[in-house]
Amino acid sequence: MTRTGKGRAELTEGPIREAMDRKQAREHEFEGLSYLRVTDDAHGLSRGIVAVGGEVVPTYPHIGRIFVLREGVRATFDAPFRAEEKIDGYNVRIVRSGGKLLAFTRGGFVCPFTVDRLPDLAELDPLFDEDPSLVLCAEVAGPGNPYLHGQVPHVSEDVAFFGFDLMRKGRSGFVPLDERDALFERHAIPRSRVLGDFAPDDFEGLRRVVLQLDAEGAEGMVLKPPAEGKRVKYVTPAVNLADVVEDASLLAELPGEFFASRIVRLAIGLDELGLEGRSGEMAERMGHALLEDFEGTVRQFRQEGIVTRSFDIRMRSEERLELLLRQLDQSAKSVNFKEISRERRDGYIHCRLAKQYQRSTSWLHTIMRGGSVID
Amino acid sequence: MTRTGKGRAELTEGPIREAMDRKQAREHEFEGLSYLRVTDDAHGLSRGIVAVGGEVVPTYPHIGRIFVLREGVRATFDAPFRAEEKIDGYNVRIVRSGGKLLAFTRGGFVCPFTVDRLPDLAELDPLFDEDPSLVLCAEVAGPGNPYLHGQVPHVSEDVAFFGFDLMRKGRSGFVPLDERDALFERHAIPRSRVLGDFAPDDFEGLRRVVLQLDAEGAEGMVLKPPAEGKRVKYVTPAVNLADVVEDASLLAELPGEFFASRIVRLAIGLDELGLEGRSGEMAERMGHALLEDFEGTVRQFRQEGIVTRSFDIRMRSEERLELLLRQLDQSAKSVNFKEISRERRDGYIHCRLAKQYQRSTSWLHTIMRGGSVID
Repeated sequence: MTRTGKGRAELTEGPIREAMDRKQAREHEFEGLSYLRVTDDAHGLSRGIVAVGGEVVPTYPHIGRIFVLREGVRATFDAPFRAEEKIDGYNVRIVRSGGKLLAFTRGGFVCPFTVDRLPDLAELDPLFDEDPSLVLCAEVAGPGNPYLHGQVPHVSEDVAFFGFDLMRKGRSGFVPLDERDALFERHAIPRSRVLGDFAPDDFEGLRRVVLQLDAEGAEGMVLKPPAEGKRVKYVTPAVNLADVVEDASLLAELPGEFFASRIVRLAIGLDELGLEGRSGEMAERMGHALLEDFEGTVRQFRQEGIVTRSFDIRMRSEERLELLLRQLDQSAKSVNFKEISRERRDGYIHCRLAKQYQRSTSWLHTIMRGGSVID
Repeated sequence: MTRTGKGRAELTEGPIREAMDRKQAREHEFEGLSYLRVTDDAHGLSRGIVAVGGEVVPTYPHIGRIFVLREGVRATFDAPFRAEEKIDGYNVRIVRSGGKLLAFTRGGFVCPFTVDRLPDLAELDPLFDEDPSLVLCAEVAGPGNPYLHGQVPHVSEDVAFFGFDLMRKGRSGFVPLDERDALFERHAIPRSRVLGDFAPDDFEGLRRVVLQLDAEGAEGMVLKPPAEGKRVKYVTPAVNLADVVEDASLLAELPGEFFASRIVRLAIGLDELGLEGRSGEMAERMGHALLEDFEGTVRQFRQEGIVTRSFDIRMRSEERLELLLRQLDQSAKSVNFKEISRERRDGYIHCRLAKQYQRSTSWLHTIMRGGSVID
């Protein structure tokens, strides 16, 4: 990598080929197209960088979280910035290569679900016709996604597409927001909501926006400078509570920090936003979920011998569905995916899948038979 | 170590001297008496083994936890066993060496607090007069202990002493319960309650005892065979709830597993014991504590710039108090101990101490100033 003006790094295929020799990158194939995927952070390359058709797709950078709005914004920005809605889905980077639209996950795999469903979600070719060097960063969200559980406001079924950034092949850094907005508008890219421009000391303005997002059950917002510079994210109290409540049945599966960190964020958010009056009611919903939903898990285990949750997806192509199932099984560390049913209807394959949670299943298997544990 | 009859290992000072050479044991001094302490599990020695006056004090073994009573008892015992109350305090092993009573913590340090307060808590010399090879295993519990927070039933102030096992210097394994009981009785050793003898299939009898312990707020019970053999422990729903509630203000300090594991145990206990009817009320108490007590921590941090909790101990000797403070500071990984006040009254030094929690203090310091975190 070499640095160019404005601190952007130029990305070429050479270092990724070298990473192949060190076993820090791997070659994959998707529908006849081969691509390289960096598998580990090392030697200045990040996990998830992809080389395809001789061009490099940069990673979408991880964005720091602020826990308090007033001081977080002051510490991050010294000039007006943009607030945009943060969508609770999965992140993909979309490029066109060899005439084909490809969607890469954070880990750098082609996502067969996204590629399969893109024609339903967004018309992207005109964007890439205008500038084939673009990388479109988007969130795919909704109950019919194969990766994440949970409700998303405004997406009551299946999935929807939310573009939120543009990058360019061969370099890191974002396309400036004005330029991005013009391209999104010209090509009617479905996108996440722009919530407004704010001065760093406009706490009241931001607070009003957060209270509105919170009331909708939205995840939160990403705060972005107009071009280069640091970005931060902030999530609503509602979504911290929802995360705890929705995954309480997995209390023996997920790391304890999953729950503790969200309760901590919730408390800090309620305190800063002046919502202490809602603590009592939220506390009770949280308590009921944590204790009683996990009691439900214990009952499920006693009846079925397994901790499992099912969900529904729909896809167009059988082959891509099979590839998705293989990738899900390979990428999940302690979850098995099991197909429950498959039905062709209205031009789609409707597939019901179950996640079988291995960690809590095997732990409950041990202790419900009377096993003892030294802890 | 060599194995003798009945699987007991003979423990001599030689291997501990060798561990010194490997830096896996250290020499310490307490009031003119030197002792060796094994600092790591290695080469068949356990952390906390002590050599003093040429004799070896074995460690108190860690006892496995069962989560379900019916199957746990069946899987552990094939003959009647004893149930004894488990006390929520700190574990010490008491020996007499060079005419002095010494109390060793689990880690193998002389506990200056216990040694200082023993004359108030129990008259132990007659026991050691009869058999100087004995190791008395005991729990010291109550709000005035220097190590642990939390309420203990029947100990409303200061601390109390509960003997619960006898071992012998130079070997592992326990003195059989009948022999222990005779010695405890003859020498009036204050002890934890015997709850009864049970057959492995007497779930209803055990359940009644657990419901009684639960109603008292007691921690639980340890189940012991009459002599050699596996032991297990079982804790009450009440204490799992109390642990979560009492430490909820430390949600950003303790590992998330601390809370998750107790909620899981609580749910499993309520389910097995037929106490689902109490879930709702317990869930709400838990939810209020987790969210609102941590909001209290946030407010404390905003006002005082620190996360701290204070407690009171009383001791007889200034020197032992100083030694205790040094040991507390050295052994705690992310807690500073600060003396708030010291007053001599009624023959005791009454000392108020504060635990200053470094992990949550420094984390709150970062994020309340607006710092961002990649998580």
